[in-house]
Amino acid sequence: MGDELKIAIAGLGTVGCGLVTILEENASLLSARTGRPIRITAVSARDRSKDRGVDLSAYEWFDDAVEMASNADADVFVELIGGEAGIALDATKAALAAGKDVVTANKAMLAFHGTELARLAEGKGHTIGYEAAVAGGIPIVKAMREGLAANNIDRVYGILNGTCNYILTTMEVSGRSFEDVLAEAQKEGYAEADPSFDIGGIDAAHKLSLLASLAYGTEVDFDAVVTEGIERIGAGDIAFADEFGYRIKLVGVAQKTPQGIEQRVHPCLVPKRSVIGSIGGVFNAVIVEGDHVGQANFVGRGAGEGPTASAVAADIMDIARGLRQPVFSVPAENLKKPQNSPISDHEGPYYLRLQVLDQPGVMAAITVILGEAGVSIDSIIQRSRAPGEPVPIVILTHDTKEGTMVAAVDRLKDAPGMQEPPRLIRIENF
Amino acid sequence: MGDELKIAIAGLGTVGCGLVTILEENASLLSARTGRPIRITAVSARDRSKDRGVDLSAYEWFDDAVEMASNADADVFVELIGGEAGIALDATKAALAAGKDVVTANKAMLAFHGTELARLAEGKGHTIGYEAAVAGGIPIVKAMREGLAANNIDRVYGILNGTCNYILTTMEVSGRSFEDVLAEAQKEGYAEADPSFDIGGIDAAHKLSLLASLAYGTEVDFDAVVTEGIERIGAGDIAFADEFGYRIKLVGVAQKTPQGIEQRVHPCLVPKRSVIGSIGGVFNAVIVEGDHVGQANFVGRGAGEGPTASAVAADIMDIARGLRQPVFSVPAENLKKPQNSPISDHEGPYYLRLQVLDQPGVMAAITVILGEAGVSIDSIIQRSRAPGEPVPIVILTHDTKEGTMVAAVDRLKDAPGMQEPPRLIRIENF
Repeated sequence: MGDELKIAIAGLGTVGCGLVTILEENASLLSARTGRPIRITAVSARDRSKDRGVDLSAYEWFDDAVEMASNADADVFVELIGGEAGIALDATKAALAAGKDVVTANKAMLAFHGTELARLAEGKGHTIGYEAAVAGGIPIVKAMREGLAANNIDRVYGILNGTCNYILTTMEVSGRSFEDVLAEAQKEGYAEADPSFDIGGIDAAHKLSLLASLAYGTEVDFDAVVTEGIERIGAGDIAFADEFGYRIKLVGVAQKTPQGIEQRVHPCLVPKRSVIGSIGGVFNAVIVEGDHVGQANFVGRGAGEGPTASAVAADIMDIARGLRQPVFSVPAENLKKPQNSPISDHEGPYYLRLQVLDQPGVMAAITVILGEAGVSIDSIIQRSRAPGEPVPIVILTHDTKEGTMVAAVDRLKDAPGMQEPPRLIRIENF
Repeated sequence: MGDELKIAIAGLGTVGCGLVTILEENASLLSARTGRPIRITAVSARDRSKDRGVDLSAYEWFDDAVEMASNADADVFVELIGGEAGIALDATKAALAAGKDVVTANKAMLAFHGTELARLAEGKGHTIGYEAAVAGGIPIVKAMREGLAANNIDRVYGILNGTCNYILTTMEVSGRSFEDVLAEAQKEGYAEADPSFDIGGIDAAHKLSLLASLAYGTEVDFDAVVTEGIERIGAGDIAFADEFGYRIKLVGVAQKTPQGIEQRVHPCLVPKRSVIGSIGGVFNAVIVEGDHVGQANFVGRGAGEGPTASAVAADIMDIARGLRQPVFSVPAENLKKPQNSPISDHEGPYYLRLQVLDQPGVMAAITVILGEAGVSIDSIIQRSRAPGEPVPIVILTHDTKEGTMVAAVDRLKDAPGMQEPPRLIRIENF
């Protein structure tokens, strides 16, 4: 049995306490597999007196995570505080400066500071594990960095936010509105009190920026991720999508295009029978398409105490086994600046919903505008109402450049009878 | 850039040539990610003159794989010859004796000699990579050994043979017979000329024995795998399963029971809407259930040049990066003899198809026998025919011990009106 590996944990919320539980409960399993005892030596959180349901008395307590990062008797600093900067970032830098490896579940911090932190860590022969930051319990970071590492990645995409998927699934099953389902999800603990990071797509975009870096050996570039949330998806959109054989999902996609790398997170129509289309509730899914492996799919719980703690513990075990990998697959000093493909060059089919007055000439005006703009129509649904009442017209297009589509929508806004701004949603025939 | 890693490849069939292709085509990607050039130095196959469509002129040629394993100027010996013993085993042992790491796609060899080979390799500080031996391109060995390593594994199961899944899927879609679909699959290259290893479940059982060892830290115990093939599945069974909401799949399951470890490969009714039930064609799927991660699903191509070569190359890259893991997750010297749970203790629901003469008293006799044996009936289908003609009766049972079920079936054989031996298939409500 080798020397023990000493762990300091900063942040004792759900995941932090889950980590304490897994490291204590499965201690003999972990040491059998790594050949070393793994022992928690120090913990830190804001409120020492809070009852967290786990016994922390054996560990040194620090009120200050940064001080713990610098001074605790530990080999690995586990950052579970959260937040893109502030204490989490200060403590992470302090831990690296003190010669500790770092394990974190903090996608926001890595989305903004991942390249810098990776260079800091690798410069000292250390690593940053972040399996828990992307898709919870699914070992997708390891799969991309190691298991599929011999492939050029054509595309990596998935459902990266369980809250959004839960809301969209519930909207579909119940036919209820976004606002209604969100309120219920908040009550049941599936959505945060301030849900904007989740429903606005920001959380998924953080994760996507890390997957893109892993896939393409590029610096993490969160600002390059085109991000749209699900706030404007209506029950009607979901019902129309259904009629065409689609579901609406919040997807994240990173892909190579002739113009560079495209990174985007947005609501999207996906075929019901696709892998992505079949993932319901709080599950996450990641699909990797490589030049030799073809398609490999990974599905599991994207959040929660157990899955996230499982991923953090796996990173700790890698360090215990001496497996220190370049954080983003290639050595951080060799990460290239990504050449980003502008979203106006994105090409694909679109879903277009127009709310118009049911009066003569309206459909003609719409189709003329689309035709003149160069948008080719694949299918149309229009339901009749009483004449003079507003009706929805839903159009699916053939493959179109986004720039062309946006210009067409811009002209449609002012078309006769238009009752509200046109609603445009991308389609992916995964 | 570090020292180059030199590779010797034995066996130049589809996968061997695929490996040459990926190592040559993606050479700069592989060296960027591992920090070392990876170079093929030697190859071996039976027939030097055969045109394989890849240029082998830069590599030293060996007619004898064992000699290459001993004497080639190489760090890694890649065994793609196949077969549970013979040249593959001799060459693997020679390579380990010569201080080389080994990478193999040979599930049969590891199923029979895995423990011994792991001890040989680890005793010399080397490793045996076999990601390609289980589920082709899916990085499931790495996921179990590393990504999910912090979990006690309750159960690991999946579709581990693409040929069987292709045949069963085609039977379901077309309504055709097993023999008919097998003949076509052979013609199209989805089944071997001698298909017995695939359709008999042997190939899947080889793979399952490796997954069980990874999951439970036990010596590989192929003999403990209860193995049944799909040869006796009829188009009628598939149609009846469909009526009850099930599909028939060849599944492999390793699970912990109160009696020990249960390992089995057999045709099985699975819910159509389960992950396993939704995997069609040549795809493989593995589902891992851990005490903290919950359920994690992995799906991808289980065979073929690209996916298999991708997995072999990933193992080579791990070695290039200095990542040498215990072959079966815990050090080989610590692998325990498995305590196997006898299949007679298996408990679950069953599908029972009886072919009987449609005459008075038959159903009464059957239900009395089942009742007396202690088998509880969940549902029954009987279709009427002309009186006196043979009709199928299909019964789904509630959870029953296999020993009880087998005893009941034994009595049913001699029941009045029975036209052929009863057909029993396990059900898993995954």
